[in-house]
Amino acid sequence: MLEYSKEKLLILEQQLLEKYHQLQSENLQLDLTRGKPSATQLELSNVLDGILAGDYLSDDGTDTRNYGGLDGIPEMKQFGADLLEVQPSEVMVSGNSSLTLMYLYLMIATFFGVRGEKSAWNREESKFICVVPGYDRHFSICEELKIQMIPVPMKNDGPDMNIVEDLIKNDPTIKGMWCVPKYSNPTGNTYSEQVVDRIAKLPKVSAPYFRVMWDNAYIVHDFGEPQPLANIMDKAREYGTLDSMIVTASTSKITFAGAGISFLATSPENLALFKKRLSMMTIGPNKVNQLRHYKFLPDLNALRNHMQKHAKIIKPKFDLVLDSLKQGIDPSIASWTTPQGGYFISFDTLEGVATKVVNLSKNAGVKLTPAGATWPYQKDPKDTNIRIAPTLPPLAELKKSMEVFVVCVNLATVQQRLTTKHH
Amino acid sequence: MLEYSKEKLLILEQQLLEKYHQLQSENLQLDLTRGKPSATQLELSNVLDGILAGDYLSDDGTDTRNYGGLDGIPEMKQFGADLLEVQPSEVMVSGNSSLTLMYLYLMIATFFGVRGEKSAWNREESKFICVVPGYDRHFSICEELKIQMIPVPMKNDGPDMNIVEDLIKNDPTIKGMWCVPKYSNPTGNTYSEQVVDRIAKLPKVSAPYFRVMWDNAYIVHDFGEPQPLANIMDKAREYGTLDSMIVTASTSKITFAGAGISFLATSPENLALFKKRLSMMTIGPNKVNQLRHYKFLPDLNALRNHMQKHAKIIKPKFDLVLDSLKQGIDPSIASWTTPQGGYFISFDTLEGVATKVVNLSKNAGVKLTPAGATWPYQKDPKDTNIRIAPTLPPLAELKKSMEVFVVCVNLATVQQRLTTKHH
Repeated sequence: MLEYSKEKLLILEQQLLEKYHQLQSENLQLDLTRGKPSATQLELSNVLDGILAGDYLSDDGTDTRNYGGLDGIPEMKQFGADLLEVQPSEVMVSGNSSLTLMYLYLMIATFFGVRGEKSAWNREESKFICVVPGYDRHFSICEELKIQMIPVPMKNDGPDMNIVEDLIKNDPTIKGMWCVPKYSNPTGNTYSEQVVDRIAKLPKVSAPYFRVMWDNAYIVHDFGEPQPLANIMDKAREYGTLDSMIVTASTSKITFAGAGISFLATSPENLALFKKRLSMMTIGPNKVNQLRHYKFLPDLNALRNHMQKHAKIIKPKFDLVLDSLKQGIDPSIASWTTPQGGYFISFDTLEGVATKVVNLSKNAGVKLTPAGATWPYQKDPKDTNIRIAPTLPPLAELKKSMEVFVVCVNLATVQQRLTTKHH
Repeated sequence: MLEYSKEKLLILEQQLLEKYHQLQSENLQLDLTRGKPSATQLELSNVLDGILAGDYLSDDGTDTRNYGGLDGIPEMKQFGADLLEVQPSEVMVSGNSSLTLMYLYLMIATFFGVRGEKSAWNREESKFICVVPGYDRHFSICEELKIQMIPVPMKNDGPDMNIVEDLIKNDPTIKGMWCVPKYSNPTGNTYSEQVVDRIAKLPKVSAPYFRVMWDNAYIVHDFGEPQPLANIMDKAREYGTLDSMIVTASTSKITFAGAGISFLATSPENLALFKKRLSMMTIGPNKVNQLRHYKFLPDLNALRNHMQKHAKIIKPKFDLVLDSLKQGIDPSIASWTTPQGGYFISFDTLEGVATKVVNLSKNAGVKLTPAGATWPYQKDPKDTNIRIAPTLPPLAELKKSMEVFVVCVNLATVQQRLTTKHH
């Protein structure tokens, strides 16, 4: 399309507008915004309610109904340790949101300090490296805590580490870095071993108290054969940088999105200090829900079997999206990722087209994540990136949504070309 | 005992030491420290697990398993509104800990401000009024946030309001006040209507952004006929001080201590601002657990019936403690409260005796809450107050614990008298 004459573009625009108005007349109300599991996925875990059959005691005799146990129950600590490939002494198990754990860790680092008041980040300027495109809620936490965000591009095998290392060496106000190392949100890429290794070494050249926020949200969310991810905690142990690693995960996209359990792994010293602060705000997490999860998913084998059921539901949705894109969009006007797991596809338009696509879709009844959402401060400097979240809608709705999306991408691109050619 | 001669005191000491050593030889391991429900109480709510019978949809069709709903589900908002006697638009329903809500509210007030940055308490000195004896975890939050604590004595009908009003009028750095208005922790006293009225009016003479932390933890925890508590939100509405009221409650001592749900009520504007901050750290509370609670306790009638079952279990324990004290301790050497509900009895020794009692008990195998715990900074200036928590142990254990306690109070008092007479 790039080399089309103005005349040809105008004809194409007319054809696309016709299709677009047709779709508009269908009064659609579709939503591709958030990475939510579908009802069919949620049903896979329906037995959770009632699974205890009256037995509320954990393996060590703890009455999960009562107060206490900031750490979580021992069997779920073991599960978390197996999942994250760490020691149980390096894990805590918490409530329904790993996002809360990340926020609290950074809130404490900002106002209280990770090693006492003198280390509080708010005593001076603080900055964070944000891989882009990335997860909007990570960026919101930084904005909330007034941590300045520095975007660094994502490559196929993880963040561009040359840029990251340069930045960190030369700027002691950089306090940390956000990572979604496996099936990254939104690109779906997984960090290579070399990248993981270089990240594990960063604290050797960074300012003190540097923290890698390793949000392993899609750790077992494979569509087929798992993509290997190197164990950052092992590498950090080797390099003596364990205190800098804050690893999180949750069962939000394994069992119930709003009623799962979360994990945080780090050095035992970090964990002790974090729990001391946490003990000011809670007497402990919902241990009954932890026990339920243990009964449902007692080990990694059970977990793997369970995740295969998710894959069976999700994979066809990703296939549908990718097929629609392949069939409907010329690769000269856009590019997109082909994830092997996770919850998102990252889609890039030509420069300055993404916002237009989102607006056109919205006016045809298909909600997309706002353009820019995948960038710090919601500002995508080239206005190209759109995050597609295929999991929530049923296949038929997804198909219709993609029909709209494809038309909008083409239409927005044609219109942008026409504007450009005018000037 | 106060007028006993030294000789008589020495004989008494011998007798008490004999009993004490006898008790020590029993190698007891008893615990009266925390206000935890007993296993028998927890069993009253055992049907919670499995109560959904596969139906995870809330009244308005929300899938409670999925993400979202920072506010809580509508039916539990209605329940919370009924419970706290406010409008549903003034309530949010959250996770398993109202303490977390209190902490977060004050953390946000301290670092972010209740009305934007300029109102952040940490921009200058900040102080809080703490009714004493009071709840240690309230005081810990203040210490954590560097809010200086000013103790104000508790009277039979609530805090000494003359002192409170004087303090607040004359010191603009006083930012708020902790209250446990019904069956107060640890005295068991309930605030009179007049006191509630005066508290509702405080923001008219206080510095701006004054906050009353109204921790209504024992709102329905009556042993028999409920003690009436005036509705502070109604009064605040009348006086135009609604923004200053932060009302909390939870089902921790109604259903499961560690796996219940919590409520926060305040003005709609406060609520909107609070939720905006919360949205940075969570996508929403565990709504499945909220729905379970609704199925179990759909309205205040169900709640009242349920609480009567608790009372049947708890009341005999309080009676046992009070009988033991009455029979074993001369009213000239100690005083204690006789609560009509709640979880605690407040016990006062002669000056300088409380720590001794706690240590003696500990060495005889009965753990008590550390002396001083009921005071800010864990410092009871006269060293008199001990909080007794009778709910957790079975009756037989409680009886033995009280046997030890009574001996320790008498022994510590005699020994203190002897020391005094020596000088």
